[in-house]
Amino acid sequence: MPRFALKIEYDGGPFAGWQRQADQPSVQGAVESALARLEPGPHTIAAAGRTDSGVHATGQIAHCDLTRDWDPFRLSEALNYHLKPHPVAILDCARVCDDWHARFTATGRRYLFRLIARRAPLTVGAGALWQVKMPLDVTAMQAGADHLLGRHDFTTFRAAMCQADSPVRTLDRLWIEEVPTHSGQLLHIHVEARSFLHNQVRSIVGTLERVGTGAWQPHDVKTALEARDRAACGPVSPPHGLYLAAVTYPVDPFADN
Amino acid sequence: MPRFALKIEYDGGPFAGWQRQADQPSVQGAVESALARLEPGPHTIAAAGRTDSGVHATGQIAHCDLTRDWDPFRLSEALNYHLKPHPVAILDCARVCDDWHARFTATGRRYLFRLIARRAPLTVGAGALWQVKMPLDVTAMQAGADHLLGRHDFTTFRAAMCQADSPVRTLDRLWIEEVPTHSGQLLHIHVEARSFLHNQVRSIVGTLERVGTGAWQPHDVKTALEARDRAACGPVSPPHGLYLAAVTYPVDPFADN
Repeated sequence: MPRFALKIEYDGGPFAGWQRQADQPSVQGAVESALARLEPGPHTIAAAGRTDSGVHATGQIAHCDLTRDWDPFRLSEALNYHLKPHPVAILDCARVCDDWHARFTATGRRYLFRLIARRAPLTVGAGALWQVKMPLDVTAMQAGADHLLGRHDFTTFRAAMCQADSPVRTLDRLWIEEVPTHSGQLLHIHVEARSFLHNQVRSIVGTLERVGTGAWQPHDVKTALEARDRAACGPVSPPHGLYLAAVTYPVDPFADN
Repeated sequence: MPRFALKIEYDGGPFAGWQRQADQPSVQGAVESALARLEPGPHTIAAAGRTDSGVHATGQIAHCDLTRDWDPFRLSEALNYHLKPHPVAILDCARVCDDWHARFTATGRRYLFRLIARRAPLTVGAGALWQVKMPLDVTAMQAGADHLLGRHDFTTFRAAMCQADSPVRTLDRLWIEEVPTHSGQLLHIHVEARSFLHNQVRSIVGTLERVGTGAWQPHDVKTALEARDRAACGPVSPPHGLYLAAVTYPVDPFADN
């Protein structure tokens, strides 16, 4: 059966997360239903990141096995047709080897967290970023973030329900970008690692927000990390500012498109 | 009665436009209702730009007259409280002279039009930009746009229902910015003039989109302008990509905030 890689964008708002669930809408379920309109029978697709309820993606990667040897462009067009009206879009599609796996072949993930500090309520794009009211000291936030770079036991920054065997992860990059905006401070927090623990990015962002307001000092992030204690973490940020932005592979499956 | 200038942001999606109407939701009506919660009695506010149904604003300016000498920050906070759950926010507020007028004192307006060219349907932010499917030649679009700069009779580019006395306007600037995005081409088209005709920006953008796809040559924009004939215009673009971004005054009323 030919295997295809899919690059997927979605608004996480209406979904209970990526993963298929019996009684709630999921992104996986939406894509699998669209596949069933093209080739009958049950479909099970695998994704690089199982995003939580409310988390968005601009570069989620999944793979599917089909019977027909579809032209990749026509497959993406047909899936987009059948995905309507769900806020899920296939951005790219490519034929891959039978042993290529969206999750296990991946060598890196990048997340983006969009955070805005302003007093006035949000209007356009309210579901696409996390709003806080206090101004943020970006230099202090970056200094706090720098303590997290490299290989560490991230027990403090993972959900109690995290099922990973080990709490050790290597954070390759974390940089905070100030994006021009017409009102307030808009921050794009970019985080890169081979893989992440459950709620790791949202736990890190919630902690850095505390540093930004001055409630925490940058060095308190190091203390929290070294505590290896979930209770030492700042508040977990809400999901609607978080985007799975990119997944990297030894060879980009979409390079020839 | 003390007069206050208000900087207003809104998502135009749910509204029949800025202007108050008897039987449809309007931005003006939402702000006037919020004012009535602070000081009873009818309120009539004036705005710099009477945006159409579906058009957004990030920098609309209006003024209101109140009985109490409100602290401007407290007034904006109180209005934002009473504006909920409408997607309308007061970004700034300042005390102005009694003869200051949001519309008549204004010396310039800037609009932003957000246009994306990509095949896949939009998910996050679908109501905040206009999507076209064909790739766009930005250099050709800018060349076409340059024919519109300066003082011209813009009969071709104004709605038949436009009530302005004269079709002559001076377009001070029109520049097209390519904004990095993860999929497709995102263009921000910025337009500046002292004032605009009804549907002028949307008529210009719809025409430039024709140039971007290659259906029109840049020089055809000059021919259309010189025709002084509404029928020579390209298709009018939809409202949901358009934002009233800024209004300028001889002295910025919010400069001291």
